[in-house]
Amino acid sequence: MLNAGLFIGSFPFASAQHLSISDSAAIRGIYDQALVSGKAYENLRTLCKEAPGRLSGSANAEKAVQLTAQMLREAGADTVWLQPVQVPAWERGESQAVLKLGGSERNLEAVTLGGSVGTNNQWIEAEVIELPGIEALKIAKEEDIRGKIVFLNEAMNPRNVNTFASYGACGGNRVFGADEAGKKGAVAVLVRSLTLSHDHHPHTGVMIYRSEQKIPGLAVSTAEAETLSDLLAKNTRPRVALKLSCRDLGFKPSFNVIAELRGRKFPEEIVVAGGHLDSWDTGEGAHDDGAGCIHSIETLRILAQLPFRPNRTFRCVLFMNEENGGMGADAYAKLAEQEQQRGIRHIAAIESDRGGFTPRGFSFETQGLGAAQAQAFLDRFSHELQPYQLQLMTNEGSGADVGKLQSTGAALFGFLPDSQRYFDVHHAETDRFENVHKRELELGAAAVASLSYLLSQHGLELPKGKKED
Amino acid sequence: MLNAGLFIGSFPFASAQHLSISDSAAIRGIYDQALVSGKAYENLRTLCKEAPGRLSGSANAEKAVQLTAQMLREAGADTVWLQPVQVPAWERGESQAVLKLGGSERNLEAVTLGGSVGTNNQWIEAEVIELPGIEALKIAKEEDIRGKIVFLNEAMNPRNVNTFASYGACGGNRVFGADEAGKKGAVAVLVRSLTLSHDHHPHTGVMIYRSEQKIPGLAVSTAEAETLSDLLAKNTRPRVALKLSCRDLGFKPSFNVIAELRGRKFPEEIVVAGGHLDSWDTGEGAHDDGAGCIHSIETLRILAQLPFRPNRTFRCVLFMNEENGGMGADAYAKLAEQEQQRGIRHIAAIESDRGGFTPRGFSFETQGLGAAQAQAFLDRFSHELQPYQLQLMTNEGSGADVGKLQSTGAALFGFLPDSQRYFDVHHAETDRFENVHKRELELGAAAVASLSYLLSQHGLELPKGKKED
Repeated sequence: MLNAGLFIGSFPFASAQHLSISDSAAIRGIYDQALVSGKAYENLRTLCKEAPGRLSGSANAEKAVQLTAQMLREAGADTVWLQPVQVPAWERGESQAVLKLGGSERNLEAVTLGGSVGTNNQWIEAEVIELPGIEALKIAKEEDIRGKIVFLNEAMNPRNVNTFASYGACGGNRVFGADEAGKKGAVAVLVRSLTLSHDHHPHTGVMIYRSEQKIPGLAVSTAEAETLSDLLAKNTRPRVALKLSCRDLGFKPSFNVIAELRGRKFPEEIVVAGGHLDSWDTGEGAHDDGAGCIHSIETLRILAQLPFRPNRTFRCVLFMNEENGGMGADAYAKLAEQEQQRGIRHIAAIESDRGGFTPRGFSFETQGLGAAQAQAFLDRFSHELQPYQLQLMTNEGSGADVGKLQSTGAALFGFLPDSQRYFDVHHAETDRFENVHKRELELGAAAVASLSYLLSQHGLELPKGKKED
Repeated sequence: MLNAGLFIGSFPFASAQHLSISDSAAIRGIYDQALVSGKAYENLRTLCKEAPGRLSGSANAEKAVQLTAQMLREAGADTVWLQPVQVPAWERGESQAVLKLGGSERNLEAVTLGGSVGTNNQWIEAEVIELPGIEALKIAKEEDIRGKIVFLNEAMNPRNVNTFASYGACGGNRVFGADEAGKKGAVAVLVRSLTLSHDHHPHTGVMIYRSEQKIPGLAVSTAEAETLSDLLAKNTRPRVALKLSCRDLGFKPSFNVIAELRGRKFPEEIVVAGGHLDSWDTGEGAHDDGAGCIHSIETLRILAQLPFRPNRTFRCVLFMNEENGGMGADAYAKLAEQEQQRGIRHIAAIESDRGGFTPRGFSFETQGLGAAQAQAFLDRFSHELQPYQLQLMTNEGSGADVGKLQSTGAALFGFLPDSQRYFDVHHAETDRFENVHKRELELGAAAVASLSYLLSQHGLELPKGKKED
C-alpha cells in the first residue's frame, strides 16, 4: 500500500485507515481526481508536441516510448517496463500528386496511404477512372482498368448515428483498393478519404497488398473527390501524375510500454487498460491514439492515488504498431499466454482507441471465453456508471489491440466516446492536440479509470450467494 | 395532407397511400431527412451570418424574425405568423475597461453585462476588492466595500459531469452581484466569466437590479480573473477604470415567430418545439440559441415531409427576449391560455436551448399539471429513442420559455445535448457558426423532431386497454 493516504482529500468518505470505500465514493473520487487535479491534458500536450506523428519505427515513436514510460513512473507505477517488439517501418518520403486538365495543372489534395509502394523516382501518369467502390472494382473488366488510375469514390454513409459503423462499411476501399486494382493492371489507386466531413485535408491509413502487383495508393480529400467526380462527369478526362518516394524499411526494434500497480488481494489477476502509442505521421496522433494512451496512464495515476490499493493488479499497456501491423498487440498477447502458464491470469482488458471525446459508455467483445462475463459485468455495475452519463453499452467489440487477448479468457471492453467528430480528424493533419477538449479528455480518463477500478476491485465472479439480477 | 407523398423516397416503408407507418420507420425516416438532405446547417449559417448578435429590440433581432419566418414558410408550414411582443431594449454602446498597476495600464479582458447602467460619459476608477462570490458579498462589511470595485471570483465547479449544474450554482454572481454590491456602496462589479474553460474572451449575460443603487457590472475572462487574483494576492493594489456608454432604451415592439402544421386527427391539440430567437450581441448566437431555433424549424420541415400528416398539430415557436426579460415566453403562455378557452389545448412542448451539440436525451419538467405525464411518455417511448443514442432522461425541467406553459397542463421537455463545450462559447464572441458541428446540429434536429413526432402521433394518453409497463 505504497500510496495509501496520498491525496486523501479527494476522497471525502475515506481515510488511510480504511481498506475500502463504497464503489460510489471511489468513483466520485476518481472523477474528482481527473477533473480537478488531472494530468491528462498536460500529458497529452507533451506527447503530441514532443513526439507528434509516431509512425512505427520512427524516431518520434521511440521518443514516445521514453516519454510515456517516464509519465507512468511519475504516475506512481510499482514497475514500468518495455516489452521489445519488432515493427514494420515505412517511410513516407516525398510525395507529389498533380492533377492535369487540358493545359493546366495543380496539386491534388492527396496523401499517400501507409504501406504504399513508391514510384521508383519516376513519374507515373494516367487517365482516371471513377468507380463507386471496391465491390464495383472487383467486377470491373480488366480492359477498362488496365493502365488507368482507379478512383474509388465511396462516401461514408451519413445515416448511422455511430460513425464507426459507416467507417467499417467502406474501409475496404482504402485497405484493399490498390491490391484489387493492381491485379487488373491499374497503375495507381486514389481512394476517397474516410470521413463524413466535406474537407480539404486527406485522411491516410493503412493499405495491404495481398498479390505481387503492387501499385501506389493515395487518399484524396473529400472536397477533391467531389471535384474529381464532377470533372469526370463532364467528360473532361483529367489525368493524374504521381511521384512518390515512400518506401518499406523492413523491420525495426521497438517496444510496448507496460506499467503495473500490484493488486492487494489477488496480485496474480490482471486488469489492463490500454491504447496504442504509434500514430500516423500526418498529424500529431492526438485523438488517435494519444488520447487512449493518456486515458490509460491517467487511470494508473488515479488508481495509485486511491486511499487503498484495489484488489487486483492493474496494468497500463501502451501498444506499439496498431496502425500498420499490430505487432505490439501480438507480442503482448503472447506474453499474456506465457504468464497464464505461470498462474498470472488476465481477467479483463479495456481498450481506448476511439478518441478523446465525451464518454458515452463501453462496448464488449462478443467473441472469446470472456464475452458473456464482459456483458454481465457492465449490466451488474451500470447503476454506478449511469450517474456519470455512461449509458451506451454495445456489442461492438473491444479494439484491435486488446481484442487479441481473447484466448486468455479475459472479459474485453472498448471505451466508447462520442463518435461524431472522430472522423473529422482521423489520420489527418487536423489530429492535433488543439482539437482535443480538456474536459472531454479528462472525463474519458475518469470513465476508463472507473471501469478499471470496478474490475480490479470486484473481479468477474459474482459474490457468493448472489445471482445475477 | 398537403405534403403527403413528397420525398417519399426517404421513407422506404411508406407510400402515399399509407396514413401511418411504424414509429421505428418514421423515426428512421426523420433521421434520414436530417442527416442526408437536412437544411439545418445552411439555415443556421444564414441566421448567424445575416443576423448575428440578435439582442432584443435590435435591428438584427428584427431581421431574424423575417429570416426565420421565411425559413418556416419554405419548410412547408401551413401557416406562419408573428405574435407581437414588447421587449426591453438595451444598447451596449462603447465600453472601456482599463487595468492600472503602478505606472502602467492595459485594457482589461472584460465585457459589460446585459442590462448594466453606464457611467454617464464619465470615468469611474477605484481599487479592486476580491471576494469568493455573492454569498461572501452579502456578509461583507459595508466599510470594506464602499467606494471599491468588487471582484466576484467564483469559479464554476468542474466536478459535475453536467456543466449546467455548475452554471446554475454560481449564476447569482452575475445576475445579482452588482445589485448586492451597489447596496453596500461599491462603484462597480467585475464578475468572473461563467465558463469552465481557461480563456481570454469574457462571457456576458443578464444582470438584474432590485434596488435603486445601480452600479455597472462587467464580466472578466477567466484568464483575467486569475491574473487579477494573483495581483491582489501579491498586494499590488491594482485599480480599474471604467467608461461605459451602455443604456436602457425602454421597450420596443418585436415578435415571436410561430408556424403551424395542422394535425390530421386532433388539430386542436398542440405540440410545440421551440428555441429563442434573440441572443447576446457578443457573438453570433449560434449555439445560444440559433441551434435551438434551427432544431425547431427543421422539425417542422421534416414533419412536413412525412408521407402522412401526424395526428396532432405541431407548432414551431421561436421566442423573442429569452436572454433579458422573457417577454416572448410570457406573451406565448398568455396566448396558450386564451386558446385553451377556445378548446385549443397545448398537450406538450419541447425547448431546445442548450446548444447544437451531440444529443444525449431529454429532461422533463417536474412542476405543473403535465409533469407526471412527461416522464411517463419518455419511459413509454425510450425503446424508440435509444437506438439513436438518446439515453439520458433527467428531471432538469424544460427551459425558460417553455417552462412558462406549466399552467396549461402540457407535458414539458428540454432537449439535452452534450454539455461539455457549451460554456466554452456561451454568451461570448466564440459563439459563432463555425463552432457548430454539422452532424451534431443535424442529430439535434432529428432528436427534437423524433420526440415531436411521437408526441404528435400518440398524444399523452395511453391507448385504451393498455396500462403503463
